[in-house]
Amino acid sequence: MDEKQDYCHFFEGTEKLLEIWFDSETSSQKNSGATNCDLRLIPRTAWESLLSLANCEIISFKKNDKLDAYVLSESSMFVSKNRFILKTCGTTTLFNCIEPLLYLVKKFTGFDEVLDIFYSRKNFLRPELQPKPHSSFYDEVEYLDNYFENGAAYCMGPINRDCWFLFTLNQIEPLKMIEGPDQTLEIIMQNLDPKVMKLFTREVCSTAKEATSRSGIDKLLPGMVIDDFLFKPCGYSMNGLINGDYYMTIHITPEPHCSYVSFETNYPQANYYDLVSRLLKIFSPGKFTLTLFANESSIAVECMQDYRMLTFSGFVGKELQFSHLKNYNLTYGLFAKAPS
Amino acid sequence: MDEKQDYCHFFEGTEKLLEIWFDSETSSQKNSGATNCDLRLIPRTAWESLLSLANCEIISFKKNDKLDAYVLSESSMFVSKNRFILKTCGTTTLFNCIEPLLYLVKKFTGFDEVLDIFYSRKNFLRPELQPKPHSSFYDEVEYLDNYFENGAAYCMGPINRDCWFLFTLNQIEPLKMIEGPDQTLEIIMQNLDPKVMKLFTREVCSTAKEATSRSGIDKLLPGMVIDDFLFKPCGYSMNGLINGDYYMTIHITPEPHCSYVSFETNYPQANYYDLVSRLLKIFSPGKFTLTLFANESSIAVECMQDYRMLTFSGFVGKELQFSHLKNYNLTYGLFAKAPS
Repeated sequence: MDEKQDYCHFFEGTEKLLEIWFDSETSSQKNSGATNCDLRLIPRTAWESLLSLANCEIISFKKNDKLDAYVLSESSMFVSKNRFILKTCGTTTLFNCIEPLLYLVKKFTGFDEVLDIFYSRKNFLRPELQPKPHSSFYDEVEYLDNYFENGAAYCMGPINRDCWFLFTLNQIEPLKMIEGPDQTLEIIMQNLDPKVMKLFTREVCSTAKEATSRSGIDKLLPGMVIDDFLFKPCGYSMNGLINGDYYMTIHITPEPHCSYVSFETNYPQANYYDLVSRLLKIFSPGKFTLTLFANESSIAVECMQDYRMLTFSGFVGKELQFSHLKNYNLTYGLFAKAPS
Repeated sequence: MDEKQDYCHFFEGTEKLLEIWFDSETSSQKNSGATNCDLRLIPRTAWESLLSLANCEIISFKKNDKLDAYVLSESSMFVSKNRFILKTCGTTTLFNCIEPLLYLVKKFTGFDEVLDIFYSRKNFLRPELQPKPHSSFYDEVEYLDNYFENGAAYCMGPINRDCWFLFTLNQIEPLKMIEGPDQTLEIIMQNLDPKVMKLFTREVCSTAKEATSRSGIDKLLPGMVIDDFLFKPCGYSMNGLINGDYYMTIHITPEPHCSYVSFETNYPQANYYDLVSRLLKIFSPGKFTLTLFANESSIAVECMQDYRMLTFSGFVGKELQFSHLKNYNLTYGLFAKAPS
């Protein structure tokens, strides 16, 4: 490894991603979440305490009428009426937030039940550096089983190589489920072009805004309110808020020996190929993982369901799996740069 | 549990299934396997020694010009020109055969390389009763990694519930691969109808032939030469040989508290729905796992690829996963009897 390029220590960019949907037992079946219930009733100081348990702090905040979006010292948090998303990287202890979160929800919001949960992550580059139970997915599942009944734990891709883990509820006869369209696309990129990664260091860009616009991130989705942050000496995070409870978020670990970029959005599209292609053009990863969740009422439900069509110019498909979960279609793919 | 019905001790019907394809480094690329190489050159006494290492013995044998088929004290073995299949249940130590097999292949057959390997099994009912490394799939993978490079290990379905494990080769640039059409359908049935299971006990049937014909197994596929065996006091195995290197095999553990039936065939069909439906009609399982492998040149390659079509009357789909491996499309499904 070129010592000059090794400008930072090892950093585990790979995020732990937790998404929980809440409901109220007393709420009408037709009305998603009791009308007065709202996760955004939880006060800022309570969020700060909660995040400190995961070793994170809030470094920036933006909101619209549907969504509170936080940039954290380690990734992002999104809070809307009945959906909570916490994404943390490094050696954060995300699971420490679960019990306090359930307590805060009960105390402040009026919600009293978990409608669904999605905990996911890619395999860590260095699992042995993670605090327990995160060093093993089996241990993580055991931990989550203590809090959530009927959890089902999946591994997409081979368990002994590049893979992606998911814990979700799989109630046999769900009485309630997430209402309305929902979809989440995540692209996890590794082995990135060092020239592109340089943009996300203070060496090259002096402000986050400069990195956002020079990279083209600001043009990935239309109409975003952007909250971006450029770390010292390197590293980048951004949240984009889009009208109507939609977000986009990007987190970048630019160090060449552990480069990592994650992209995630719930912005609905009938076809994500153009968006993914533009993302790949910006970052030029050596390999990337694609996951797409879409429920039956989402316009994305048929997107990326045909394995013969699931191709990206300049990349070869290494792994392709399609899973039909209780309420969601899930596409998983691993792609690597084609030999030139 | 009805004590009267509990006519045998616990038995782990769940098989360990190993399929290995061989080739010769010096063979022409166009000709699958060197012309003179043949796994059937391995002498019977060598097979007997090999199987004794797995705690199995040969109890019956039938052959045609393409295939040697053995009924074992614990399931079945199929040997054709360049494909070896060993399926063993109970607490057999299947992996003990691997090193001796590779030795015998080198010594007797002319083959000198492994073209592909498929090791698969459903999760055990009682993994803690299995000899190491079989008590954990992770340990099995570690063991197999010692013998086969570039192995990829998958889990279909949730790792903490009903699931199915697979270890296979996933060479990034395979120089050679299995030539010609190939497909394997496996149906693993559990929680079976005790009335049907009674057929496979000496209480009800006095001969294997009687069990085979009363159940309708003999009519599942056309033109089979059948080699069947009814164990005392209960339990049943059968191999069916079909012209052209095709087999069907069924193994039955009838005890009500651990009932298990496996069905497997490589007989090609463009559409397996009728066959599976007839099988379900015969056995009436409480739940079943379906796996279908088909390579690009198989007439089955598009069969069971559409999740909306993958349904069986009287059953609900619990898990559906479609994986696109290097050379095979793999369909995995878990189905449970619909509440009446």
